[in-house]
Amino acid sequence: MRQSQLFTKTSKENPSGEVSLNAQLLIKAGFVDKEMAGVYSYLPLGLRVLDKIKNIVRDEMNKLGGQEILMPALHPKENYEKTERWNSIDILFKLDGTGGKEYALGATHEEIVTPLVKKFASSYKDLPVYVYQIQDKFRNEPRAKSGLLRGREFSMKDLYSFHKSQEGLDEFYEKSKETYFNIYKRCGLGDLTHIVFASGGMFSKYSHEFQTVTEFGEDIIYVCEKCGVGVNKEIISEQKVCPECGGEKLKEEKAIEVGNIFKLKTKFTDAFDYKYIDEKGQKQQVFMGCYGIGPSRVLGTVVEVHHDEKGMIWPEEIAPFQIHLISLGDEGKVEAEKIYDKLIEKGVEVLWDDRDMQAGAKFADCDLIGIPKRIVVSKKTLEKNSVEVKMRNSDEVKFVEIDKI
Amino acid sequence: MRQSQLFTKTSKENPSGEVSLNAQLLIKAGFVDKEMAGVYSYLPLGLRVLDKIKNIVRDEMNKLGGQEILMPALHPKENYEKTERWNSIDILFKLDGTGGKEYALGATHEEIVTPLVKKFASSYKDLPVYVYQIQDKFRNEPRAKSGLLRGREFSMKDLYSFHKSQEGLDEFYEKSKETYFNIYKRCGLGDLTHIVFASGGMFSKYSHEFQTVTEFGEDIIYVCEKCGVGVNKEIISEQKVCPECGGEKLKEEKAIEVGNIFKLKTKFTDAFDYKYIDEKGQKQQVFMGCYGIGPSRVLGTVVEVHHDEKGMIWPEEIAPFQIHLISLGDEGKVEAEKIYDKLIEKGVEVLWDDRDMQAGAKFADCDLIGIPKRIVVSKKTLEKNSVEVKMRNSDEVKFVEIDKI
Repeated sequence: MRQSQLFTKTSKENPSGEVSLNAQLLIKAGFVDKEMAGVYSYLPLGLRVLDKIKNIVRDEMNKLGGQEILMPALHPKENYEKTERWNSIDILFKLDGTGGKEYALGATHEEIVTPLVKKFASSYKDLPVYVYQIQDKFRNEPRAKSGLLRGREFSMKDLYSFHKSQEGLDEFYEKSKETYFNIYKRCGLGDLTHIVFASGGMFSKYSHEFQTVTEFGEDIIYVCEKCGVGVNKEIISEQKVCPECGGEKLKEEKAIEVGNIFKLKTKFTDAFDYKYIDEKGQKQQVFMGCYGIGPSRVLGTVVEVHHDEKGMIWPEEIAPFQIHLISLGDEGKVEAEKIYDKLIEKGVEVLWDDRDMQAGAKFADCDLIGIPKRIVVSKKTLEKNSVEVKMRNSDEVKFVEIDKI
Repeated sequence: MRQSQLFTKTSKENPSGEVSLNAQLLIKAGFVDKEMAGVYSYLPLGLRVLDKIKNIVRDEMNKLGGQEILMPALHPKENYEKTERWNSIDILFKLDGTGGKEYALGATHEEIVTPLVKKFASSYKDLPVYVYQIQDKFRNEPRAKSGLLRGREFSMKDLYSFHKSQEGLDEFYEKSKETYFNIYKRCGLGDLTHIVFASGGMFSKYSHEFQTVTEFGEDIIYVCEKCGVGVNKEIISEQKVCPECGGEKLKEEKAIEVGNIFKLKTKFTDAFDYKYIDEKGQKQQVFMGCYGIGPSRVLGTVVEVHHDEKGMIWPEEIAPFQIHLISLGDEGKVEAEKIYDKLIEKGVEVLWDDRDMQAGAKFADCDLIGIPKRIVVSKKTLEKNSVEVKMRNSDEVKFVEIDKI
C-alpha cells in the first residue's frame, strides 16, 4: 500500500484522557481511534493486525478440530433465566425490544451454544463436538481505562466443547493448552506467557489462565521457578506452593490475562436439560468446557510488551506489513516504485512511504508504526546501487544491492 | 470436509414458526439456526457462504478504492444529539451503561464515521476519502418474519465517501453503481437485479436501490421495458414515466432490496462541523455519500431465487463447497477417499459424504444443501472405472473416468 493513500495520519501528541500505553501508541500511530472509554474503531493498519491475530487463532482452532460458527450478540432473556444468570452477571448489558421483549448483549455464549448443540448432537455417535466463533462481545465495565485490554466492546474467540464423559473433557482440555501456547508463540508472546492456576468457580477446583508477564499488567501471579507454571494471587494459599510440581520458589510478577480455559462440566448442559443417549439407550449427562481468547486484548498486550521509546515493534506474523519501504527525494521515488511493484508482484506485504516529506519525519513515523523491516531508497543508497536495510528491533544498518532484495 | 465430522444435520421437517422460504431451507439444511425472530446463528455451511459473500464485497470495495476499517456497535448518545437522530430513528436500540451513560446500538454509522474521518482529512490534499466496514448492525424491527431478509441483527457493508465538491460525489456515486452490479453478478443475482430510483429524503431528489426481482419480494417496483431501470412504488408519480429514459412502458414486479446508495451531501458533515481547508486557505463544506449492502440479506435473497422443490442451488462463487462427493457402499468409500485426498491436495473445496447411509437419503441431503457439482462413487460406477457427475442445476448425468476428474 502507498502511504500517501492511507487516510490516517500519525500524531506526535499523546491522545488526551488516554492513560494506557497500548492505546496511546496505537492512537498516535493511527491504528485505532477511541470512540469512548473501552470502545475503539480499528483503522486500516490496526485492522490488518487484528485480522492477522484472528486468522492465527482460527488456524489453530481448526487444527484442534474446532468447527467455526457465528452466533448473535442479541440474546433472549429466557435463556438466562434457565441458567439463573440474568441477574448474576453484573457486567451484562440489557436492552428492551418491541413487544416487551428483553435482550442481553452477549458477554459470553454458553446460553446460546448449549441449546444450539443440543439440537444436533443427541447420540453418543455425535459427541464430542467442538464449535467456536470469533465475534464481538459486550461488557458493561465500570472502569475501562486499559485501552484494548479491558473493553466494553471487544473481539473474542470462544470455543465450546461437549463430551460424553469427564475423561473426554479432561483430555481435550489438556490438548487445548498446547493450542493456546502455539497461538501466543505465533503472536510474539510465547516467551512471556505462562499457564496459571485460577479459580474454578463452583464446579471445578481450578481453571487455567494464560498470563503474559509485563510490568503494566493488572493481575498479580506467582510463577514457579522450577516448572514455569503460575498461580493467580486470587487463589494462592498462604504456604505458596506450586500446585503443578510442588515447587516452593514462586516469583511474584505482574501480568495480563490473555486467555482462559474452564471446565464447565454439566452446569449449562443440565440447565438446558441437554442429555445424550448412550450405546444402551440410556440418557447421560453431557460434559462441557469453554476456551476463550480475545484477539483485541492480544493486540493490546503485544503493544505493551513490544515497544520502545520510539514506538511499536511488531512480531513478524502479525505485523500490518512485512516491509516499510521509504523513498527519499525524487531519485529515490523513481527507483522505489520499481522495487515496490516487484515486491507486490511477489506477494510481499509492503507499505511504501511515497509521501513528499523530510527524511526525519518519515523515519519517526516508521519507528512509531513498527513494521519489522525498513528499506530506504535514496540518492545516497543509489550511488552504491543499493538500498539500506534495517530491522525495527536492531540498530544495525546494512546495504543490500538492489538486485538482491 | 468429511460430512461425518460436520456437527450439523439436515432435517426433513419445516421449522415451526418460520414463514420465510429462505430461513426454512437454510434451517432444514443446517446452514443457520434461529435464535429468535430476526436473529440467527450461522452454522459451518452457512458461515462459509456468508464469508464468501463478504469477501466478494470486500474485493469489489477495495477495487473501488475503499479502505477497510471496523467501527464499534456501541455508539454514544451525544453523537446522535448532534445529528438530531436520537429520537427520530425509530428502530434504534438504546441501552444504559454504568455512570448514567446512554448508548445506541449501531443501525448505521454516519454518527461514528463522520467525526472519525474529520480527525484525519482536514485539507484539500486529504480528500476524497472512501472508507468501509463489514460489521453487524442492529435494528429494533417491529416485524421480523422474513428470515435473513429483515433481521434485528444482520451483517452489513457500509461505505462512506467524503468529497471536496458535489461533482466529486456525483462522479464517485456513478462509479459505485458498476461496483454494485459486479457484486450481484458474482453472487448469482446479476440477471435479476435492477437499479431503482427511490426517495432521496430531505436532501436529494432521488437515492438508488438495487432490487432483485422475485415473487417473494416485499417491495413493489416498476421496471422500464426500454432501459431496465426501475422505480420504487413509493415515489412513482401517477403518470408512470421512467425517470432515466422517459420510457412509458413500466412493468410491475415484486422485488427484494439488496443494496442502496445515497447522496448525504452535507447533512452529517455540517452536523459535526466538518469542513476542509481549500487551496486558498478557506473553509469549505465536505460532501458525503453512503453505500450499503447486507451480506446476510444477499445470502437470503440468493436462496429465495435459486432453489427448487428439493432444496437450494448455490451459484458457483458463493457455494459452501464446489463439489459434493458421495460415496456409496464400502467399495465406494475406499475409492472416494483417494479422490477426496487428491482434490483437497489440489485446493478444491469438497464436502465428502462419507456417512454410512442409504443412497436415497444421501442424494436428498445433497439436493437440499445445493452444492453446484455432485460426484458419486459406487460399486456401479467403479465397474466402469468411473464416477458419476451431475450438476445441481441440471438433470443430465454423465460418467467420467476416475483419472480425468
